Amino acid sequence: MTTTVPALLTKTTGAPFERGTVERREVGPRDVLIDIAYAGICHSDIHQARQEWGEAIFPMVPGHEIAGTVSAVGAEVERYAVGDRVGVGCFVDSCRECEYCLAGEEQFCLKGNVATYNGRYYDGEPTYGGYSTQTVVDERYVLRIPEGIPLDAAAPLLCAGITTYSPLRHHGAGEGKRVAVIGLGGLGHMAVKIAAAMGAEVTVLSRTRSKEEDALAFGAAHYVATAEDGALKALRNTFDLIINTVSADLDLDAYLRTLRVDGSLVYVGAPSERQSFAVFSLIGGRRSVAGSNIGGIRETQEMLDFCGEHGIVSTIETIGADDVTAAYDRVVEGGVRYRYVIDTATIPA
Amino acid sequence: MTTTVPALLTKTTGAPFERGTVERREVGPRDVLIDIAYAGICHSDIHQARQEWGEAIFPMVPGHEIAGTVSAVGAEVERYAVGDRVGVGCFVDSCRECEYCLAGEEQFCLKGNVATYNGRYYDGEPTYGGYSTQTVVDERYVLRIPEGIPLDAAAPLLCAGITTYSPLRHHGAGEGKRVAVIGLGGLGHMAVKIAAAMGAEVTVLSRTRSKEEDALAFGAAHYVATAEDGALKALRNTFDLIINTVSADLDLDAYLRTLRVDGSLVYVGAPSERQSFAVFSLIGGRRSVAGSNIGGIRETQEMLDFCGEHGIVSTIETIGADDVTAAYDRVVEGGVRYRYVIDTATIPA
Repeated sequence: MTTTVPALLTKTTGAPFERGTVERREVGPRDVLIDIAYAGICHSDIHQARQEWGEAIFPMVPGHEIAGTVSAVGAEVERYAVGDRVGVGCFVDSCRECEYCLAGEEQFCLKGNVATYNGRYYDGEPTYGGYSTQTVVDERYVLRIPEGIPLDAAAPLLCAGITTYSPLRHHGAGEGKRVAVIGLGGLGHMAVKIAAAMGAEVTVLSRTRSKEEDALAFGAAHYVATAEDGALKALRNTFDLIINTVSADLDLDAYLRTLRVDGSLVYVGAPSERQSFAVFSLIGGRRSVAGSNIGGIRETQEMLDFCGEHGIVSTIETIGADDVTAAYDRVVEGGVRYRYVIDTATIPA
Repeated sequence: MTTTVPALLTKTTGAPFERGTVERREVGPRDVLIDIAYAGICHSDIHQARQEWGEAIFPMVPGHEIAGTVSAVGAEVERYAVGDRVGVGCFVDSCRECEYCLAGEEQFCLKGNVATYNGRYYDGEPTYGGYSTQTVVDERYVLRIPEGIPLDAAAPLLCAGITTYSPLRHHGAGEGKRVAVIGLGGLGHMAVKIAAAMGAEVTVLSRTRSKEEDALAFGAAHYVATAEDGALKALRNTFDLIINTVSADLDLDAYLRTLRVDGSLVYVGAPSERQSFAVFSLIGGRRSVAGSNIGGIRETQEMLDFCGEHGIVSTIETIGADDVTAAYDRVVEGGVRYRYVIDTATIPA
């Protein structure tokens, strides 16, 4: 038997959020019932609610940066108990059989994993995300939030955290490596905090000086305002890795030339505009342009444990249900510093 | 005292080749005098002779796929003796002090290495390449050509060989890896032979079926005519590595989707047209687009030894001095199978 729970809904492309309800499935033998405390607002929530990434499913309850506590578990659940602090990220199921699922990299599931919202379970039922008070998720797709980091500021780790942690690990950020982060927003500020904690020498590349103080406070060693004359040219042969968190089109060649030999520029955002480059920018230094897409469950837990150990959380502004529609505009304008998190206690009518 | 030696010259952009002479420097204490036997025609010779890669130095004597025998050595030369079979590739000096030179990757020399032709020595004197009967090169930049492979067919290894060997090694081509090669020309046919010898399962991606028989003879396991309907779509999630030897613009996204997770598409040619891609093509599979640029002296010797061990040489058509101008057109038309090599005995007037 399903349970009706309060949720924030958007009913059609770009429509304002309104209070409503969704049905959650009965807690099955391997399921965990989670009382959601906080849900982060990710830029991809906005892309999907506004149908900028192709056809979407409405009504939509976004939210894949979910933090809360376990309030019930199925009979066969082994990893979680009532009262545990847990999170849910970008997907809630996957085929569990393909080579990538078997390797713990469910983000690349060949069948296609089940997105936490704006997706469909394999039986065809739509999924609803974290802008809600409760959800039911198979324990295999539930993460443990370490003691010592607060649930509200931990919520964005479930997407922004893993989205930046994964490429930093994959490309070997650490002691002796110079890492640049393009853009200091929701993703960028997490990239700076995590890369610095890994021991890398971090440079923030942002258009203006407006975020310099914050960048240094987050752990950056250097800050470069790219709109200033000759700023990028002065950085030739500097970085081992660039994490690009900016969705807008950028002068890829100018950034590629700041990479050392074997350096990589990694896209973690997903601009819909095509990107272009001159081939000489790559071959001249055996450089590469790469992409990265969240992370698997195993790596997401590793990231949460790393953040717990280093006391890393997102820098957030907590908002109520009534503020979400306006918050979307603020995110698009770049006005949030640095992540909105919805207090789900404000959702019930 | 310099020595005057016969050479094939082109006097201005795109001008026909004519017989003439160039001056070679006196054999210094660390120099090797090489009697050139053969010089391969690389597509980059054409780009430079036609000034398609920026301002060039005329008169020009192209040629950086040089094979011959040592006919004299300076007093301090340690590695070579008269009669040794040797080769010279794309550069004849480098700063020897920067981090990349010290690492044996002189192709990335921060001062800029000295190109074998259409370049300048650090004292400002222009360099002249292998379309000639003799040259003088510091032994540090001379390669040993293994016994058992003929000088004529070995000459193209000095550029086409290392250009394809280096990215194959760098990206881990070998047993259990699926490697695709786009284009079966001078570079492509070397990539197929070398990748197959490394143990990879090689697929040739060529527009039509015209080169299928050759591809299989070179060691490819599969051949796909990309102009056939749905050919690329059927290859989704197939390759670990794609070596792109084609200079023309290509539908990068269609090729990227044939890569497995963590797969790379590597440019080894250098089209002057900008290339573009959709970011989703990268992030969906943590894929990358990379470049590779020849190799250092150490790796070039490693490649030659590998080719000697596996009996790998280029598939060539040997031509005389009178054929070079026409051969350039044939290369551009894609008419050569698979590399022209100039018999330098035909150069003296």
